[in-house]
Amino acid sequence: MAKPAFRELRHTYGFDEVAIVPGDMTINPDQTDVSYSIGNIKFDIPIIASAMDGVTDTAFAIRMSKLGGLAVLNLEGVQTRYDNPSEILSQIAKAPETEVTALMQKVYAEPIRDELIAERIKQIKAGGGVCAVSVAPANTKKYVKTIVDAGADILVVASTVTSAHHISKSTHGLVFEELVKQVPIPVVVGNCVSYSACIALMRTGVAAVLVGVGPGAACTSREVLGIGVPQITATMDCAQARDDYFNESGRYVSIITDGGFRKGGDVCKAIAAGADAVMLGSIFAQAEGAPGYGCHWGMANPHASLPRGTRIKVGITGTLEQILFGPTSLTHGSQNFVGALQNCMGVCGAANIAEFHKTEIVIAPSIVTEGKFYQMTIPTI
Amino acid sequence: MAKPAFRELRHTYGFDEVAIVPGDMTINPDQTDVSYSIGNIKFDIPIIASAMDGVTDTAFAIRMSKLGGLAVLNLEGVQTRYDNPSEILSQIAKAPETEVTALMQKVYAEPIRDELIAERIKQIKAGGGVCAVSVAPANTKKYVKTIVDAGADILVVASTVTSAHHISKSTHGLVFEELVKQVPIPVVVGNCVSYSACIALMRTGVAAVLVGVGPGAACTSREVLGIGVPQITATMDCAQARDDYFNESGRYVSIITDGGFRKGGDVCKAIAAGADAVMLGSIFAQAEGAPGYGCHWGMANPHASLPRGTRIKVGITGTLEQILFGPTSLTHGSQNFVGALQNCMGVCGAANIAEFHKTEIVIAPSIVTEGKFYQMTIPTI
Amino acid sequence: MAKPAFRELRHTYGFDEVAIVPGDMTINPDQTDVSYSIGNIKFDIPIIASAMDGVTDTAFAIRMSKLGGLAVLNLEGVQTRYDNPSEILSQIAKAPETEVTALMQKVYAEPIRDELIAERIKQIKAGGGVCAVSVAPANTKKYVKTIVDAGADILVVASTVTSAHHISKSTHGLVFEELVKQVPIPVVVGNCVSYSACIALMRTGVAAVLVGVGPGAACTSREVLGIGVPQITATMDCAQARDDYFNESGRYVSIITDGGFRKGGDVCKAIAAGADAVMLGSIFAQAEGAPGYGCHWGMANPHASLPRGTRIKVGITGTLEQILFGPTSLTHGSQNFVGALQNCMGVCGAANIAEFHKTEIVIAPSIVTEGKFYQMTIPTI
Amino acid sequence: MAKPAFRELRHTYGFDEVAIVPGDMTINPDQTDVSYSIGNIKFDIPIIASAMDGVTDTAFAIRMSKLGGLAVLNLEGVQTRYDNPSEILSQIAKAPETEVTALMQKVYAEPIRDELIAERIKQIKAGGGVCAVSVAPANTKKYVKTIVDAGADILVVASTVTSAHHISKSTHGLVFEELVKQVPIPVVVGNCVSYSACIALMRTGVAAVLVGVGPGAACTSREVLGIGVPQITATMDCAQARDDYFNESGRYVSIITDGGFRKGGDVCKAIAAGADAVMLGSIFAQAEGAPGYGCHWGMANPHASLPRGTRIKVGITGTLEQILFGPTSLTHGSQNFVGALQNCMGVCGAANIAEFHKTEIVIAPSIVTEGKFYQMTIPTI
Repeated sequence: MAKPAFRELRHTYGFDEVAIVPGDMTINPDQTDVSYSIGNIKFDIPIIASAMDGVTDTAFAIRMSKLGGLAVLNLEGVQTRYDNPSEILSQIAKAPETEVTALMQKVYAEPIRDELIAERIKQIKAGGGVCAVSVAPANTKKYVKTIVDAGADILVVASTVTSAHHISKSTHGLVFEELVKQVPIPVVVGNCVSYSACIALMRTGVAAVLVGVGPGAACTSREVLGIGVPQITATMDCAQARDDYFNESGRYVSIITDGGFRKGGDVCKAIAAGADAVMLGSIFAQAEGAPGYGCHWGMANPHASLPRGTRIKVGITGTLEQILFGPTSLTHGSQNFVGALQNCMGVCGAANIAEFHKTEIVIAPSIVTEGKFYQMTIPTI
Repeated sequence: MAKPAFRELRHTYGFDEVAIVPGDMTINPDQTDVSYSIGNIKFDIPIIASAMDGVTDTAFAIRMSKLGGLAVLNLEGVQTRYDNPSEILSQIAKAPETEVTALMQKVYAEPIRDELIAERIKQIKAGGGVCAVSVAPANTKKYVKTIVDAGADILVVASTVTSAHHISKSTHGLVFEELVKQVPIPVVVGNCVSYSACIALMRTGVAAVLVGVGPGAACTSREVLGIGVPQITATMDCAQARDDYFNESGRYVSIITDGGFRKGGDVCKAIAAGADAVMLGSIFAQAEGAPGYGCHWGMANPHASLPRGTRIKVGITGTLEQILFGPTSLTHGSQNFVGALQNCMGVCGAANIAEFHKTEIVIAPSIVTEGKFYQMTIPTI
Repeated sequence: MAKPAFRELRHTYGFDEVAIVPGDMTINPDQTDVSYSIGNIKFDIPIIASAMDGVTDTAFAIRMSKLGGLAVLNLEGVQTRYDNPSEILSQIAKAPETEVTALMQKVYAEPIRDELIAERIKQIKAGGGVCAVSVAPANTKKYVKTIVDAGADILVVASTVTSAHHISKSTHGLVFEELVKQVPIPVVVGNCVSYSACIALMRTGVAAVLVGVGPGAACTSREVLGIGVPQITATMDCAQARDDYFNESGRYVSIITDGGFRKGGDVCKAIAAGADAVMLGSIFAQAEGAPGYGCHWGMANPHASLPRGTRIKVGITGTLEQILFGPTSLTHGSQNFVGALQNCMGVCGAANIAEFHKTEIVIAPSIVTEGKFYQMTIPTI
Repeated sequence: MAKPAFRELRHTYGFDEVAIVPGDMTINPDQTDVSYSIGNIKFDIPIIASAMDGVTDTAFAIRMSKLGGLAVLNLEGVQTRYDNPSEILSQIAKAPETEVTALMQKVYAEPIRDELIAERIKQIKAGGGVCAVSVAPANTKKYVKTIVDAGADILVVASTVTSAHHISKSTHGLVFEELVKQVPIPVVVGNCVSYSACIALMRTGVAAVLVGVGPGAACTSREVLGIGVPQITATMDCAQARDDYFNESGRYVSIITDGGFRKGGDVCKAIAAGADAVMLGSIFAQAEGAPGYGCHWGMANPHASLPRGTRIKVGITGTLEQILFGPTSLTHGSQNFVGALQNCMGVCGAANIAEFHKTEIVIAPSIVTEGKFYQMTIPTI
């Protein structure tokens, strides 16, 4: 009997499986440029705060803008359902572990109000911030006019998995080609993880693509649905889509790696793997003044019939300035993200993000060995 | 000296080593069809409750049928040895840890009674259920007439490892070709894990094949006997056997992945890997009304001289309806299995199980990183 | 610049990385033959108790012989240094953790006595046992006459790593070719792990070769010296050497995998990988009547300047008969080793060990997932 | 659509992923030669104590020299900032966990004094030691005259990542070609990890290269910056650079693997992988008389805005003689490093380090299995 044709599977890699190789030349960190663009809007630092209720409110968005970054306001969270969202966020933060999922299912059952959408956008603009807002694809048509009229700068259309072609019973589903023509501001869409899904999204005319579905082995998308691609492979594949799309169209569409970050090294790896920017959630939930009172949860969490994830008490670990630029006395890489990125680019000899995309990445095992002896070796680096 | 010919080993993969890649298009979950067939019997949902004493009794089989699924009654367990099996099951549930193996060795030493076999089958039929019953190969000849006469719909002939050709001292061993011709109902056999064993079983004329031997690294078959193949590889190889057999014969024989499931994502992965349906044990032992009083054990457990596995207290976590269809407030994927499957098929753009078999699966490392920081990233998906 | 020639490393595998694939046909376990030979001496069961002071004394060697197996007496341990070794073994068993290495360094400094070597050999023969005794290469010349004259049946010459060609300042080193010609009994040598070292040893004329150096990641040879090859690869490579040597010489030299075994599945895997027999230490130290009073330690342990390993309290878990043949109420595979092997050969359709050597072995990940859900799946096999 | 060109990643390996294969012949350990050279200075043992404040002071450097090794004095630590460094080291050792990073940031803010540089060098020379001193590249020009004038034997220029070509705003940066011509003593530079960076450094004329950046998965360079290459791959690549450079130039430049060592086996693996010598930190911090009072920390630790690593209390485990040559009653390979190396070379049949570089290394999984049974197998080696 001839050997049957066994199905072959491709290897994929996440942050913990890889490491960056220092370059043959080095450059002083203060001579590195970490800026990037979404459409024609340029940002000094490639770090975005995610559209989560524990992370971004209007005040936080304004502060991020002033520091050179961006924070995206979630238009389907508590900010647009309640006049006083802070009160609701405080209830969630204080709820006992056993009641919090049920409480969130109730809180998010309250309707979204159009006038609150407009009000939040205007608050960010009034504060001098770049205003980026986020809606799910299913709700985009409903709110897009309000969003644009209120003066938003960037529209983010995001769900767990977004594709350029969605089949549904509704005959009036969202078509990205039409949306992009209709709105005068850059449209960011996601999330996706594969080359083909990413390039298809780029061909609809969007300004940037969010990359990341089920990035970690312990992610709820991976546990509940089985779907997901580790972030290094997802980023590399989508970066290839971006480069191929640039070759075919002459238009550069930034990719933003979203999810799974724990520390400075992860951000460096994502950008070395091809990301133009990264989107962080829980890290910013730990900033002084973040709206979640030191708590953090995903937007899939309050799902009525298939809730995923939990509220995590992350605590407050420092100011937003410390998280982005230091100085810090923490030694595990959860603060001074921009400093870490510039240091890493320096040892790789990369003067800017385009050069950093060419840095060599290797598969470096991350089997963790516990215990005293291993700890001892840390300082010998 | 010439290099010696080193023996090469093939890599295999289990649920924890792989992940499903979202598709280039997506489809609304409510537009997906998850039905499959065993012979000419069609089932709305591809989930089967296993023939274990803690999982399936007559009442449970009737409830599963009404919900579109199937539950298999074990004809060699307590149901056919005792008039009042519930009393025995309660004793097992209550036995102290140190005495339970000895108690089970004694309980299962009681003889199987023919009239109880007939009675249990008639109870399921009377309740309106599809009646599937399970016997070991060695006992099949002895009970097959009783089973068919009592009106069973499906005959499952299963052992840890079953092959199309068994060598034994007995000259009157079971021959599947003969059995299939003799009985007028679909015959399901297993378990097997390799392409060649699976296609050989299909060529005997059986209606479906159970796939799974020693699926997990901690499985007792793996620990005690060293045998086993992780479920994703086993499923892919047997799916290939099914497709090749379909090409050679024109007959479609469903494969049912059996064992090793922990959560919704695992079911999605098995079906994406090629399974037509899955068989779950411990998950259903947790349903309200399951016969095991919140306990679960394998049928190899009471083996007289080589017991394997232990009684596990799984507890009662919800209704059967919740386990299958939700709604749920649990977030780790151990309820709403059908909802999870339809969601996953939706993001993969698969309208039915045949399409879902073409979904890309990748090797995605599952090295678990403990601790607070990683947990924090869960909600950012 | 041309790409430099990076050094390539070969993958190797241990017990935990592989699994055995069931066969296309099956055979009743009671129809399998597990016998093997060392030279012209045939043994009914392919399991050998190792030459360790906590495992084998004269009484234990006699019992193993009567059960069809073999136990090797260490001629450089307490048995040949003390008139009453049991007293010394009891002291070692009772010594506090902090003092035991120092105590052993002292106990093993006592000289070996020729007359005790002769006496121990005669005791085993008088009891009706096959007498196998073990010495280090450096001491072989010194004791070989006494050993042969006293009537030993098998001479084992073993050290951590043994090669056919040893360079030393001594001009009168041991030459295996000469030894084999000089002694009228089968000579077993080891340990080795590579194809080339194994075939070189076989060419000296020895009757069997021990396989195993630093088999596990936590082994002291691996930790202290960095040396070692996981047992599946070591066994496969040495089995290839045996087969190639058989082809070139017509003489079949058994290989005995020695070290790293924890449970029945490991024994099955070693033999499926090509071993003719296995050598177990700690497992037998747990037998009722083993000399070590429930303790076990390696012979490298008392090394004067580079001690390796520790005394382990393994406890007494059953009779020797239970360990070899069951019955047992333990479910984790640490008893009924012969039963497990015959069961495994049965599901692989192997009627004898030569056939079992052809069984497929696959790489099956052993990343252990902790916790309740995984435990629950154990009985579903 | 044609398949996109997915980016391929190379596998790399660390100490825990590999093992050394014993040779086809063996040699008595006492006949092995472990000497190596830096420039024209020959050392009897290939072990160097690193330039860390908890490891090397003048007295320690003298003792290491007398034992055949080398210890490097850090000229930018407390030794050159304080008249009485011991007092400062004692404060660091005694500081509570929560205050130690801040204390170190303060201690290392004190200026370096030229006259103390000269004094420390003269103390080592007066004591009869080989004097090797270490400075960062940025400070080399400033201190080089003082260093040479004071009589140092070896100049080590090291930072986390050092390259042959550094881009900075300063027009008067360090150029290694110029430095090597200017100073009359051997110059050692590092650290680097790649073939191309290493050969570029060698071409500048340096006498030896330090290999090692972020060697372990838990290293702070890996966590904070994402950079690093596991030490076996880094060593193999740089050894290839050394051999290729030797072929092109006729000059042999030793490579010194620096960082990540925990035990004897790691040292053996590094040298088998191609290192001429190894540099250890925390191991020596445990020696009686080491300056750190049983504490150890990296020089990146007190970094003002991006501190990495922590002070580790390693304790005092034995004399320097025991750590290097034994005897020892410890069994886990953290003492008698030279004895372990010679034993390993013996079983590999390598008479000197050049021969040992040809030893086969294999990938041997290090998935650690916890629990009693595994422990039990340790002594069976």
